[in-house]
Amino acid sequence: MNVRGRVTLPIEQGMDDQLPQILDRLGADAVRNSDGTWLPEITSQLGVKVYETYFPARGNQEFALAHLDARPRFYLMSDRVTAPAEGPLAIDIMNGYYKMQVEPDQGDLQRWWEVIDRTTGEVVPVEGWSVSGEGADVTVTIAAPVAFHVYTVSFLAWQVWDSTQMYNYTTNNWENDPTRVREIGYDARHPDAWEFMTSSMRKWCEERPEVDVVRFTTFFYHFTLVFNDLGKEKYVDWFGYSASVSPLAMEAFEAEYGYKLRAEDFIDEGYYNNSFRVPSKVFSDWMDFQSRFVSSRVKELVDIVHSFGKEALMFLGDTWMGTEPYGKYWPEIGMDGVVGSVGSAATCRMISDIPGIRYSEGRFLPYFFPDVFKPGGDPLGEANESWLQARRAIARKPLERIGYGGYLSLAVQFPEFMARIEQIADEFRSIHEVGEGHLPQSSTIRVGLLNAWGAQRSWQTHMVAHALWYKQIYSYLGVLESLAGLPFDLQFISFDDVRDGKLDDLDVVLNVGAAGTAFSGGEQWLDNDLITALRGFAANGGGVIGIGEPSAVQHQGAYFQLSDVLGVDKELGFSQSTDRYPVERPEHFITADLPGALDVGEGAGDIFATGDATQILRLQNRSVELAANQQGEGRGVYIAGLPYSHENARVLHRAIFWAAGREADFDAQWVPSNVGVEVSVFPEAGKAFVMNNLTEAAATTLRGRATGLDGDGAITELQLDLEPMESRWIDLQG
Amino acid sequence: MNVRGRVTLPIEQGMDDQLPQILDRLGADAVRNSDGTWLPEITSQLGVKVYETYFPARGNQEFALAHLDARPRFYLMSDRVTAPAEGPLAIDIMNGYYKMQVEPDQGDLQRWWEVIDRTTGEVVPVEGWSVSGEGADVTVTIAAPVAFHVYTVSFLAWQVWDSTQMYNYTTNNWENDPTRVREIGYDARHPDAWEFMTSSMRKWCEERPEVDVVRFTTFFYHFTLVFNDLGKEKYVDWFGYSASVSPLAMEAFEAEYGYKLRAEDFIDEGYYNNSFRVPSKVFSDWMDFQSRFVSSRVKELVDIVHSFGKEALMFLGDTWMGTEPYGKYWPEIGMDGVVGSVGSAATCRMISDIPGIRYSEGRFLPYFFPDVFKPGGDPLGEANESWLQARRAIARKPLERIGYGGYLSLAVQFPEFMARIEQIADEFRSIHEVGEGHLPQSSTIRVGLLNAWGAQRSWQTHMVAHALWYKQIYSYLGVLESLAGLPFDLQFISFDDVRDGKLDDLDVVLNVGAAGTAFSGGEQWLDNDLITALRGFAANGGGVIGIGEPSAVQHQGAYFQLSDVLGVDKELGFSQSTDRYPVERPEHFITADLPGALDVGEGAGDIFATGDATQILRLQNRSVELAANQQGEGRGVYIAGLPYSHENARVLHRAIFWAAGREADFDAQWVPSNVGVEVSVFPEAGKAFVMNNLTEAAATTLRGRATGLDGDGAITELQLDLEPMESRWIDLQG
Ligand SMILES: [Mg+2]
Ligand SMILES: [Mg+2]
Ligand SMILES: [Mg+2]
Repeated sequence: MNVRGRVTLPIEQGMDDQLPQILDRLGADAVRNSDGTWLPEITSQLGVKVYETYFPARGNQEFALAHLDARPRFYLMSDRVTAPAEGPLAIDIMNGYYKMQVEPDQGDLQRWWEVIDRTTGEVVPVEGWSVSGEGADVTVTIAAPVAFHVYTVSFLAWQVWDSTQMYNYTTNNWENDPTRVREIGYDARHPDAWEFMTSSMRKWCEERPEVDVVRFTTFFYHFTLVFNDLGKEKYVDWFGYSASVSPLAMEAFEAEYGYKLRAEDFIDEGYYNNSFRVPSKVFSDWMDFQSRFVSSRVKELVDIVHSFGKEALMFLGDTWMGTEPYGKYWPEIGMDGVVGSVGSAATCRMISDIPGIRYSEGRFLPYFFPDVFKPGGDPLGEANESWLQARRAIARKPLERIGYGGYLSLAVQFPEFMARIEQIADEFRSIHEVGEGHLPQSSTIRVGLLNAWGAQRSWQTHMVAHALWYKQIYSYLGVLESLAGLPFDLQFISFDDVRDGKLDDLDVVLNVGAAGTAFSGGEQWLDNDLITALRGFAANGGGVIGIGEPSAVQHQGAYFQLSDVLGVDKELGFSQSTDRYPVERPEHFITADLPGALDVGEGAGDIFATGDATQILRLQNRSVELAANQQGEGRGVYIAGLPYSHENARVLHRAIFWAAGREADFDAQWVPSNVGVEVSVFPEAGKAFVMNNLTEAAATTLRGRATGLDGDGAITELQLDLEPMESRWIDLQG
Repeated sequence: MNVRGRVTLPIEQGMDDQLPQILDRLGADAVRNSDGTWLPEITSQLGVKVYETYFPARGNQEFALAHLDARPRFYLMSDRVTAPAEGPLAIDIMNGYYKMQVEPDQGDLQRWWEVIDRTTGEVVPVEGWSVSGEGADVTVTIAAPVAFHVYTVSFLAWQVWDSTQMYNYTTNNWENDPTRVREIGYDARHPDAWEFMTSSMRKWCEERPEVDVVRFTTFFYHFTLVFNDLGKEKYVDWFGYSASVSPLAMEAFEAEYGYKLRAEDFIDEGYYNNSFRVPSKVFSDWMDFQSRFVSSRVKELVDIVHSFGKEALMFLGDTWMGTEPYGKYWPEIGMDGVVGSVGSAATCRMISDIPGIRYSEGRFLPYFFPDVFKPGGDPLGEANESWLQARRAIARKPLERIGYGGYLSLAVQFPEFMARIEQIADEFRSIHEVGEGHLPQSSTIRVGLLNAWGAQRSWQTHMVAHALWYKQIYSYLGVLESLAGLPFDLQFISFDDVRDGKLDDLDVVLNVGAAGTAFSGGEQWLDNDLITALRGFAANGGGVIGIGEPSAVQHQGAYFQLSDVLGVDKELGFSQSTDRYPVERPEHFITADLPGALDVGEGAGDIFATGDATQILRLQNRSVELAANQQGEGRGVYIAGLPYSHENARVLHRAIFWAAGREADFDAQWVPSNVGVEVSVFPEAGKAFVMNNLTEAAATTLRGRATGLDGDGAITELQLDLEPMESRWIDLQG
């Protein structure tokens, strides 16, 4: 295949001679600049679409400096400080914060700040504390604290320096570059700022007839990113709203919702409503409020862009709070496309599944930056790793476009890398060519992932910072990573959805996460309607898969409230007196492709079978790691953790089939015998896309029907020998 | 040394010729029979005290069969059963129980039984359920359960077979022995049974003038020991009171305490108030009530024994509920001594520290039973292991006596074993000889172990069944095992003691255990008085050592409520957004004898330092395993778990010194440089007892003063080379 298109490349000045040929080789139909590069004059003659980056809420330092009251703010909490035996307690609220980034906002602080006794949870009355100091040196003194109680100060602060620009600035040592300033942002809610944003947008569009696509580096409110007193990252929450606050917004909220906000609504005991917290009513209201505001304002900017005949493309994202693409108001914006960084199959699906846009684009790794494109660097290896991860997801739900970022002049110094991304671009386009607009086929088993967030956080569960490894998430992220390449149409459903009857639309439901988190559900499971809905679902033949600490909350003699369905519970110490005689019975449909131990990552602690009916499929160190339980008509599967691996994805694939009671169909699903190989079936085209996910050669057999995953025709068996990383289109007819 | 005495041996018939010589070799001054052996006629001529076993509450089957209403009972819970979508729910309450042991007591069942909706915690009204069946086949039917709610039945049941006798019967295959019956017990609260017990006691004493010591195999109420439908152990709690119930007792309780008891007071969601549960007010009342009753009745039996000029010795124990030797009413009984099985240093201290008796006796391992004393068995190895464990404890707080049990005729077939226990007996007696009634010296650092039980469970924390290994306890039991041989006078204090000011008597306090358990404390830590008492203690220079999940309960942004003092907290998932930059600084006073990693056993999960001030001494897999924190005048030490080892005992020894701010004194404490060696110092004798705890030779240096652990004289250094397992008396003068 040698079709052109669907690929965006970064270009820069000084490469005019090479550019046409490079674009042609890769079939690139769009170009972009990067942070620190400018498009060459030749661009308009290249016959490609032109992207240019735009920052709505920062970038004009002159405006920013003239409107310091338009700076965005955030809510921050001081250290936890223990009161002495007697006398007042002085808290240096800026201790541990970076004074270049944060400055307390002392405006009406009695209204917006809060001093809390963390031993009791009580608020200290405003008469009980006073503030001294100014600028970034501010002390709060509690006149008469209770001896040995712990206190915190919640304070509103100015964002003195834009978080992303600060990150780029410090990372790239721009302090040595006199052309760089420390950029200050401005808040779209400030009337002057908003007026400035719209007029700037118009002016910018006017001045750039050559730009086809405005690539918004998202919009107004940065995710929570706070630095410490050494300028190192102190707090990061890619989903955080604590940098979206302002008195203006909070007063508008109060006027609309009829209740006052308080600092603690954002501070949340110091957890800042991160997405692991079961969202409070107030926080959900705030998200809705800000999302509605941001979306409506973004729509105005997008309308301006459209009025100039340009497209609006959102980078997902830095200042993306309020434009979450699975949010309620997103489709109303009318964004043309979303581009995002692809770090895994799950992040790829996070982009490719976005509703309400015409196209999604994945920015692939590696970024053309000197950290990788240097002597001794391995850009080829990184490209392969990135592609192998993303290809599984693309073959399930294709991105419309792919692209790269950074400095092309660096990349061309690595010819093997350039040759490889040429192959990748062709391989990518073939999925669109063969698929002819059809998506690959999914199993008819309807699968839902249940947590407190539901659809609002589709493909965004168990994440802290974007696509980074954390010890407490990788054993759960593996579930999403597996599902991102498995042939199921995954629905993300919330506990409220369950209460609204949503389980009727599902065959199998998963609850995945650590106890108490929004992903497991915490005290949500004390709700009788929720728990009986799940038990009823199982009793009627539904499948329930629990991973980690599903439905966990200590109550009435059980920790997993779904222990009856799952057949397992967790030992917290209280039930050690009950003797257990666990027997591993490792042979099962679910483990048919898992010859040895299951890698459960961090695992879930001491899991025991609640009765003899539970089939323990894997038992390690006296703890159940994989179990299957028939409960009435329905089935429960428990997995202690599922970091991503080819084997684990297969275990989940089989677990879903077993939970759905559909294991008899599995043999005709074109599932490769080799777990390192995966397949996407396109019945309309009569073809299947077979991917060797391994960096070594792979032999496999495949069994399925000419009709694809369904039907009742004869089953054909194919034998394939695949090169390392190879993908191959095969004919379903055999 | 060749002093006689302090040793009890089991003797039996058919060894008359050998007995005098064996007793002489071992210096035994007392003999006993065992279960299944009888004392020979020659006994009275041996010049030794004679023990004989006595069972107050079982053993007369004729009486038992004639008084089936005097059988003891227990409270049991059925399986947890999920209600169907519609229709009634029938629960086979005996499912999983052993019908030879358990039979539901249907007397006034509407008063004593309880059906509970475990989904809501609500009690189903008695009109809502009915009982059918009889004997051991009993079904409870809930007429109109809520669909998909989980139900349990709590029922009172007869103990049809005494638990210990059943265990012995099935273990020893007595079903093939026609002289054996399935013994049924009788409840001391039953008037006829009590009359029978006292008259039998008198008669027994009268008929046995040759017996000097009545060895009571404890008394009336068995610890909770229930078997499953295969006759295997189903539930065991060495501290359980659920086999102490009867309508008579509960009615007497109600009359005295003024409130009604209900089944759930004993069932406790199926956890049966095991000692890991923070005790409820009702359960504490019940313990007090039964202990008072049992103790007063036991005193009557002991008085009878004394009236015959005999001694009363209690074996600790099978049916020991109500005679816990650290209980409030214990000293009033007037028991002469306690004998218990020694399985470790901690169980040895559990016996040797018992107050209010004239002597304690440790029954050493191995028991002279054919499971060990057989070709291929290793009785010598077991004797060495047992002695090395117990010796540490004996050298700190000597037992008054030691002894063995089982069949002497088996033991004499192993001459190396006999030779070894002869050495052990001499070594044991030397401690009494040299000590001359003085205890070995303790550090002046006053150490307390804080939990919900306090003194009531001295040396009995973190135990399920007596001295057995459980996965969730060994990392905590190591703390007790270490302390049992360390030179500190340990106080066991309760949270109530802290509220009463008891911390004033301490320099260092330990809180050790898993979150939510009685040993960590659970929601006790939400009490402001408790938490401020601890923080104030630390602020005034006290030391706090937390092991595992100390003070853990999620509240106001912290999980460890003492995180400010300990300098660490546990990541439950909510604070992952906070960046951490842990740096291990392994060199510290506490780790001076720990060259490598710390073995924390099961560990405590993801522990992080709360700030830079915390010194992380050991960091593994991104989790803090050992940390030291200076907080004001006081100090906190955190350890993630401390299974017993020589190294870990030393870490704790040093941690206590550091927490107390006394590390400068450590060099003169006669602490061996080799962690495999320990020392007990007897300043009155001017001597120290040096023990090589290793089964290999050990070289060590020792530094201390002639005055013992205190004083300010010159420090002497000794160098010793010790044989494997050797103990040696050294002169403090050098
Ligand atoms: Mg965990
Ligand atoms: Mg004995
Ligand atoms: Mg644990």
